[in-house]
Amino acid sequence: MSFGGIEAGGTRWNCAVGGDGPQPERVETFPTTTPAETIGRAVEFFAAVPDLEALGLGLFGPVDVRRDSARWGTITTTPKPGWRDVDVVGPLAEALGVPIALDTDVNAAAIGEWRHGAAQGLDTFVYVTVGTGIGGGAFANGRPVHGLLHPEIGHMLIPHDRVRDPFDGCCPYHGDCLEGLASGTAMRERWGRPAEEIDDSAAWDLEAEHLAHGLANLVLTLSAERIVLGGGVGRSPGLVERVRARLPETLAGYVDVPQLSTEVDTYLVPPALGEHSGVIGALDLARTAC
Amino acid sequence: MSFGGIEAGGTRWNCAVGGDGPQPERVETFPTTTPAETIGRAVEFFAAVPDLEALGLGLFGPVDVRRDSARWGTITTTPKPGWRDVDVVGPLAEALGVPIALDTDVNAAAIGEWRHGAAQGLDTFVYVTVGTGIGGGAFANGRPVHGLLHPEIGHMLIPHDRVRDPFDGCCPYHGDCLEGLASGTAMRERWGRPAEEIDDSAAWDLEAEHLAHGLANLVLTLSAERIVLGGGVGRSPGLVERVRARLPETLAGYVDVPQLSTEVDTYLVPPALGEHSGVIGALDLARTAC
Repeated sequence: MSFGGIEAGGTRWNCAVGGDGPQPERVETFPTTTPAETIGRAVEFFAAVPDLEALGLGLFGPVDVRRDSARWGTITTTPKPGWRDVDVVGPLAEALGVPIALDTDVNAAAIGEWRHGAAQGLDTFVYVTVGTGIGGGAFANGRPVHGLLHPEIGHMLIPHDRVRDPFDGCCPYHGDCLEGLASGTAMRERWGRPAEEIDDSAAWDLEAEHLAHGLANLVLTLSAERIVLGGGVGRSPGLVERVRARLPETLAGYVDVPQLSTEVDTYLVPPALGEHSGVIGALDLARTAC
Repeated sequence: MSFGGIEAGGTRWNCAVGGDGPQPERVETFPTTTPAETIGRAVEFFAAVPDLEALGLGLFGPVDVRRDSARWGTITTTPKPGWRDVDVVGPLAEALGVPIALDTDVNAAAIGEWRHGAAQGLDTFVYVTVGTGIGGGAFANGRPVHGLLHPEIGHMLIPHDRVRDPFDGCCPYHGDCLEGLASGTAMRERWGRPAEEIDDSAAWDLEAEHLAHGLANLVLTLSAERIVLGGGVGRSPGLVERVRARLPETLAGYVDVPQLSTEVDTYLVPPALGEHSGVIGALDLARTAC
């Protein structure tokens, strides 16, 4: 019996086949191009799996994940060209003929870290990914948070000291929201080169400062018991350490628990599943679909 | 059989006795003075109830609500003079000899609105109180959020355009956090008179702008299905309407659901229980204590 999982991100899709264990048996990765081409490649990958039982889909958003909605499985207001109002679940279901369990790509990553990684057994935590954009999957009271639609923590509004950081922000909706100031796109636009080529300590200090503002708000709103910081930029060498140094000073001792002072090293952590949180969580989702 | 409930706020305590129905049979209100005097008045009120079964306590915070903690029922880093590191549950339990159920004052209000008021049946919502300070009680996945400690949404960091609003903010911890910019204390310090004496439209527009930033972050982090705006300042005439006008424009259409456009009048609402959400929720808490 095989399960399929897709971490369908805005930059690339990771498709995986797995069995009973958490680890995928085979993964294929390709860039997110047009909807027709990208969905087509996923269909091709899974159509070749003879005994596919179900598919778990962790999809970039904003996406309608309300099971009773007519737009279930449709991407809505994404700034990504060509993907607005695109139904992703429909064509997959039609081509593959298996049950599909859907959540956001970041909730899939949170599910992976919760079942097998850095957030096992936690009631309330957040998985934050900093890459091309910024997103987050959240658990509260032991289950993924959906609520009105799903959290969109990347678009949280944070302080912006324009003297210290005159960059206007790059979010097409909000300008200088968290994603607008601290995503990989923001780093590239501000410094003229991609994050992986930036080794200027001041640039990474500014990045850590913006992220600490956003994570402080996750402490104050979701009351996260732990924050897992992943994504291509989030996993940059030294970044988690810089944010750990900033977060307690940003909160200024107001939330008086050891996790935000002496134990911050175990409070803010990298994903235990590395780059695979999303695809492993998508396979977990598939197991709930049958 | 009688139940006791206290909405133990930082400004005043409301003590209530109730029976089977949600409405309190008798309420006594007094100002929050010193811990000894305030707790003493509550003890005096409940000691006179002959058949008191249990007490529900909604306590201002930050307060340790973790049942397995040695500091359970102790107020921690409050800026309120005299109340830091004060054990409130201990003296009440010793004097009254009944089981006590504890939550934050704002979670008690959220419980009241969830059971009997403006948030009935919702999975995920936030009760926000704007008074002397700003606080919020949150439900996610059908239960109050505690997580690391409990949400402290009043201290969320938000944008602050110092050209438009040169006021530095009044929070002793964070300066210009949400509470520092938009609480009743902030209004009094900025304008030189209490909120109830301010009838300048520009002052209330600024207040609505700061609150809309904070509430937008509740949409983006907790994914609230509804926001209930209460508290002495929050219930000021016309304020909820001003914030309703601001909230969709602050989100700039990013969360594409009718609740944040055409249906915002039913998304952001005043508490259905008026000033009594907290004390009614505290009585509900008491019923869970036996």
